[in-house]
Amino acid sequence: MEEALLKDGERIDDLQINNLKIIQNPNGFCFGLDAVLLANFVELRKGFKVVDLGTGTGIIPILLAGKSQDTQIKAIEIQEDVSEMASRSMKLNQLEDRVEVLNIDLKDHNKYLQPNSFDVVTTNPPYMHSEGLINPGDKKAISRHEVKCTLEDVIATAAKLLKDHGKLFMVHRPQRLVDIIIQCRKYKLEPKRLRFVHSTAGKKPNLLLLECRKFSQPELKIVDPLIIYKDNGQYTDEIQSIYERTSLQEGGGNYGEG
Amino acid sequence: MEEALLKDGERIDDLQINNLKIIQNPNGFCFGLDAVLLANFVELRKGFKVVDLGTGTGIIPILLAGKSQDTQIKAIEIQEDVSEMASRSMKLNQLEDRVEVLNIDLKDHNKYLQPNSFDVVTTNPPYMHSEGLINPGDKKAISRHEVKCTLEDVIATAAKLLKDHGKLFMVHRPQRLVDIIIQCRKYKLEPKRLRFVHSTAGKKPNLLLLECRKFSQPELKIVDPLIIYKDNGQYTDEIQSIYERTSLQEGGGNYGEG
Repeated sequence: MEEALLKDGERIDDLQINNLKIIQNPNGFCFGLDAVLLANFVELRKGFKVVDLGTGTGIIPILLAGKSQDTQIKAIEIQEDVSEMASRSMKLNQLEDRVEVLNIDLKDHNKYLQPNSFDVVTTNPPYMHSEGLINPGDKKAISRHEVKCTLEDVIATAAKLLKDHGKLFMVHRPQRLVDIIIQCRKYKLEPKRLRFVHSTAGKKPNLLLLECRKFSQPELKIVDPLIIYKDNGQYTDEIQSIYERTSLQEGGGNYGEG
Repeated sequence: MEEALLKDGERIDDLQINNLKIIQNPNGFCFGLDAVLLANFVELRKGFKVVDLGTGTGIIPILLAGKSQDTQIKAIEIQEDVSEMASRSMKLNQLEDRVEVLNIDLKDHNKYLQPNSFDVVTTNPPYMHSEGLINPGDKKAISRHEVKCTLEDVIATAAKLLKDHGKLFMVHRPQRLVDIIIQCRKYKLEPKRLRFVHSTAGKKPNLLLLECRKFSQPELKIVDPLIIYKDNGQYTDEIQSIYERTSLQEGGGNYGEG
């Protein structure tokens, strides 16, 4: 039955939480640890309206839907085929009523979405500057590089869509921290909680998780770092427990590659 | 002999590096681990011209003078008696020819110092916002709160005094990171290297060390964290080795209190 939702080259991955599954194409951009950590970092309350900017395969809406029973989620993706695959993943999980995938450019949000109407914006945006060397037809490149939208586009869109005091949750690379902070302050999304993700304790961070709040007062909390591996190479208890809730298979992620 | 340089209530503390000593008043603001870590974080080259903004007892110029033989250092302090005490510490160390203590308001730098003339600016500024509750005559408060100068004053002054591509080295609190980044970018001091200081691995940072470069391209490196204590409560090897170079006595510092 489920296979009817698959196209050539695609596969269904079992997320092993509440029976959730996702369609991915191993030749395209597959979700990674960063998406799992972001979904875990997001705080949801009953009835929240959520929008995920640049949803890709739809992994973040699926994981958020698994965390809460009554959130309404819009998932925005500019790439037509990727967005269509994400829609099929929502059908696969019977989430069509709760997650609406929109194949639009996030810069056109004002044509499709109500401003000041969302409690939460999530985003796992392209991490890297577009260096002019990218093939604009390369799907992995669109997910990883700022080909179709810049960091500023993402943050400006989040600021428009959020209610007053609504929250933006973002995963990104530490080397972009300065740009992120500058843009968030510019669009009145005050950085409030910052968590660095380190492969091992004592080593530099590979990822950051940031919570910003619209129109909030300045006061940043940098919280305890999230450590992936113990010194003996095993997952830390915290990662183990996040995995138990979202049970990724070993090697199924692409940590830090995004 | 040395006691002739002391006033009532003051004492001489031996820094146990190159015979360096410092005059402090235990009832005033005494230097702490943050100053030692900042001096350790600073990179100096032969012949560098350095200015320390808000030098207090002069600990940073003294430690920098101990790291290099030929730096010329200006040390700026607004409080007359503290600045006078710092001058006596320079005499005590025969550093009068290399470290000039100026009892001026850093906002008046243009009357006393050449713009675009320093290779390095160091600063361990007041960490806390002035909340209006501070007694403006309280010397500890002046060292710890933004009574006499704001973070922006310090960063604007650093930007004026540095040569093109000169470096600002700062120690501060993590909760001010957003303000620091905003001001540094505003004054074209691009944050380039950021190191968080954690009491123990896996716990949130208590201090940050930041290197900015004037007119540099954006690209932040967050480097390996600096951990103070091992799990067994002993100093880590790195702190041990910093201490061996500047041998503070146990309890002599006031880590994170500044």
